[in-house]
This record gives sequence, structure tokens and C-alpha cells, in this order.
Amino acid sequence: MSFSSKRLTIIGVGLIGGSLARALRRGDSCGEIVGCGRDGAHLQKAVELGVIDRYEMDIAAAVSGADVVVVAVPLRAMVAVFRQLMAGLSADAVITDVGSAKGCVVEEARAVLGDRLEAFVPGHPIAGTEKSGVEASFAELYDGRGVILTPLKETSSEKFARVQAMWECAGATVTEMEVQHHDEVLAATSHLPHLLAYSLVNTLASLDERREIFDFAAGGFRDFTRIASSDPVMWRDICLENRDAVLEVLQHFNNDLRQLEAAVRDNDSDAVLSVFKRAKATRDNFCG
Amino acid sequence: MSFSSKRLTIIGVGLIGGSLARALRRGDSCGEIVGCGRDGAHLQKAVELGVIDRYEMDIAAAVSGADVVVVAVPLRAMVAVFRQLMAGLSADAVITDVGSAKGCVVEEARAVLGDRLEAFVPGHPIAGTEKSGVEASFAELYDGRGVILTPLKETSSEKFARVQAMWECAGATVTEMEVQHHDEVLAATSHLPHLLAYSLVNTLASLDERREIFDFAAGGFRDFTRIASSDPVMWRDICLENRDAVLEVLQHFNNDLRQLEAAVRDNDSDAVLSVFKRAKATRDNFCG
Repeated sequence: MSFSSKRLTIIGVGLIGGSLARALRRGDSCGEIVGCGRDGAHLQKAVELGVIDRYEMDIAAAVSGADVVVVAVPLRAMVAVFRQLMAGLSADAVITDVGSAKGCVVEEARAVLGDRLEAFVPGHPIAGTEKSGVEASFAELYDGRGVILTPLKETSSEKFARVQAMWECAGATVTEMEVQHHDEVLAATSHLPHLLAYSLVNTLASLDERREIFDFAAGGFRDFTRIASSDPVMWRDICLENRDAVLEVLQHFNNDLRQLEAAVRDNDSDAVLSVFKRAKATRDNFCG
Repeated sequence: MSFSSKRLTIIGVGLIGGSLARALRRGDSCGEIVGCGRDGAHLQKAVELGVIDRYEMDIAAAVSGADVVVVAVPLRAMVAVFRQLMAGLSADAVITDVGSAKGCVVEEARAVLGDRLEAFVPGHPIAGTEKSGVEASFAELYDGRGVILTPLKETSSEKFARVQAMWECAGATVTEMEVQHHDEVLAATSHLPHLLAYSLVNTLASLDERREIFDFAAGGFRDFTRIASSDPVMWRDICLENRDAVLEVLQHFNNDLRQLEAAVRDNDSDAVLSVFKRAKATRDNFCG
């Protein structure tokens, strides 16, 4: 399906929004890409980097005349953006977002978008790095990666198709999913791992009185804790906004870890090996 | 300090032993490198790859005439190797090992090596990948990496110096440490992370009834779980042989995680953010 936009507005030109702009620019699909945000110097930088064509600081002005509006701001900033963009939104515009949790965003959209809810296609690109900001953005971020869209019963199918085409044009593969299912799956594969990585590094920081623990950390530890270098505010928001799903999968994790701990304490070789073997087989299977 | 060996014997020619041989071969330090192991085809492969010059299946024969003996077998195979090498060991030979836990190896060495304990220099190169076997070995594995040596009060200082020189010749930096301190540090930065990675993947495998969880795992998850692709038998042995230190750091982790879980449940933004921020600062600091 081909994608084209006369004017595409990205609200929040960071790693995710900036990389989407760069990806779309590889083709000839967008007449103009307009950026919007709260930091003029940052947006000016995005213009200089060739990520966006121009920018507006006012959200209603930024979305004026746009046929596609991508909201790529932190989860807790979404609702204010939704509220402000209503004043400038074109009649045929589609609105999509990139929030890492969908239940909270959908709830806010329902509360604010009124009869324009049909124009909203909730989305989440499963891509990113531990870095932030437009300087970290790159055109290939979405190549071969998945994007999950969680349309509502009110969502226009034509507008859903437009957002799907946009992400495919950016190099991604689109999957449709229920809002709640999305939040459960992402709690398991993304939110909980971030929580655990932050928690482990924090624990070791407390133990590290002599600055020696980290001096002898090998490559495996660097990989394991890479996500603990992610933006703390963004991940605090994600973990709290998707609290129920995160706590549920954390409970499963804790139960299983307690069993493994008991097996180690009891020197139960077979039980420990069986967990490790199953994990390796699973991981080798899904990561090739 | 320069290193030279007329005959260096490596018992266990896998990723660690094979990479050491390859690293030493970059210089002109070894007259001959002899391999030893239980699998003739595997050792023949190591000869064909140019990793070792020749091999012996019998341990006493393999160490005969060697001035340096490196024991690079799994932790639970160490004691049998120590017992068998005594019959062929030269009077001036130094013995070192590469075990990931040192307390258990030292205990076995004390029980078996008798008056040759002076020749034993317990060691642990802090390097590796999630892969195993001589095919995965490479000469650069130790470049710029740390090797911890944990000499005993009986260890000859001349023999300690020879092992230090060997590792420096292989590209590594050597640090001396107490046995117990080594086991505590490695439990924190290596053994516990492996345990957590295996445990998390195992939990998600149980939840993954519809094969969807892993389909939407991003790069962060791949990094976080890479160590769960490591050899399960080897890591089972490490976690059990270093049980006390692993359980102690696991208890710290569990206590802190329970507090973080409570903060998420209570929607305590400041508490969650403070953990995430401290972890990011710590991780950015030690990983540059």
C-alpha cells in the first residue's frame, strides 16, 4: 500500500519522532514534515539536521493543514497535546501516537478527542535504543522492525490503513493487536526487563562501596544492563502508566525466581539445569 | 615482564582455552602448545584450526614436559583433572586455572595437589561470549580485559609472576584479589545476572502460550537476555559452586526489588525515579 502525505506533523522530535521523519524522507512520500515541541533550540537543531522542514512551537499551528499528525511525546505529556491539537486539526487528518503503553493513552484520547476519536490510531513502534534526542535519530531505526497498532472500535478503517502505510513506508511491519494484550506483551518483554535492569544496577551500586564490583564487569554484564542507561523519566512513566500489567508479570517472575533460589539453596542440580536449559532453548529459538 | 614457555599445555580447548592459545600465538612466546581433552575429534579440529600444535587424550601425558599447565575445563571437572595431572607434572611446572568461581577450585586444589600446591595460581579471565567451543575462540578475546588471580599463601611468587606474564602476553591486565572477595564480586556482576536472565526468559516462556511475547521483543530485550544463551551446564555449575555468594547478592536484589515493586504499586513517582536515575548514572559511569 503506498503512502503519501502533503503535510506530516510530528509532535516531539526525539529519537522516535526524528527517526520516523528520517525514514520517511528516504522516499518521496511527504510534501512537508513539520516539527513541534517545547524547546526551540532543539527544533532548530532538527531543521539543521534535515530531519524536519520547519517547526512551530504552538501545537494547534503545527497541526494546521496536516493530513497526518504523529504524537511522539512522553506518555505523561500525551493528554495535554491531544487537548491542544483539537483547535488546529484538519477535517481529514489522522492522529497516531508512539506511546509504549496503550491503555493509558487510549483512556486519555477517549476523554479528550470527542467526535474526532475516529481519527485516532493508537500505535507503538517496537524499536529504540538506550539513547534519546533527535541527535540519536537515524533513518534505519524501523527497518524490519514491528509496529503494533491497537485501533479502537471507533477508529476509521481508512485512517488505520493510512497509518499502516506510513509505518510500512518507514520500513516496519505492522501488526494489529488489542489494547490490553499489547500492554501485557510489552510489560513482559520490555517494561519488566527495564525495571529489573534498573533495579539490579541500583542494588550493585549500593554494594559497590569499594568501586570494585563494576571494574570486573564483563561484556555480558554490559549487554544485560544496557537498558539501565535509558531515560529514567520516560521509563518511570511507562512502568507507572502500565502498572497493572507490569505488576502482574513481575509477580510471575518473582514466583519463578523464588523457586530457582530454593533449587540453588538445596543444591538441586537437575532443577537449576532444567530452568537454564529451557531458557537457552527459548532464547536461541526466538533470537535465531 | 616477558613471558616464554617451552611447552604450554591447555587442558580443555574450548572458547577460553582456545582463545588463550590463539592470543599467545600472536607472539613468539610458546615453543609448543599441547591440547588435552576428552573428545579426540574436537582436539583434532583444534589442531586443524592452528589453535594447538598437537594433543594428548591422557592428562598425565599431556602435561609431561610442560612448564605451564592451564586447566580450562568446567568447574565440576577440575578436581579430576588436578588428580590426574599429578602423575605427569614436571618439577618446575606452574598450574593455573580459569574457573569462574575460585573458592571451590581452591578447596579442591588443597585436597589434591599436596606439596605441589605452591605451583598452583588460581585465575579467572573476565572475558567470554555466550558461545562455546574451540570454533568460537579468537585471539583478541583478552585484549584489554581483566584477569583476576587469587594466589594462596602457599603460592610461589615466581610462579605467580609467570602466570601474570602469560596473561599480559595474551593482552589482558592482571589484578590480584582474595579468593572470597573474587567470589562475591563475580556473584554480583556475572553469576546473578546470568541467573536473572535465565529466570526471566524461563518465566516468559511459560507465559508465551500464543508465541506472541517474543515476536515483539525489541533490541533491548535481545541484549538483556543474550547471556541466557550461554551454556546451561557451565552456568548451573558456577551458580551452585558459588552458591553462598550468589544467594547473598540475590537476597540484596530481592529486598531492593520488593521496595521498587511497592513504589510502583503505590504510584510513588519520586521513589521509582530515584532508583532509575541512580541506576542510569551508575551504569553510564562504569560503561562510559
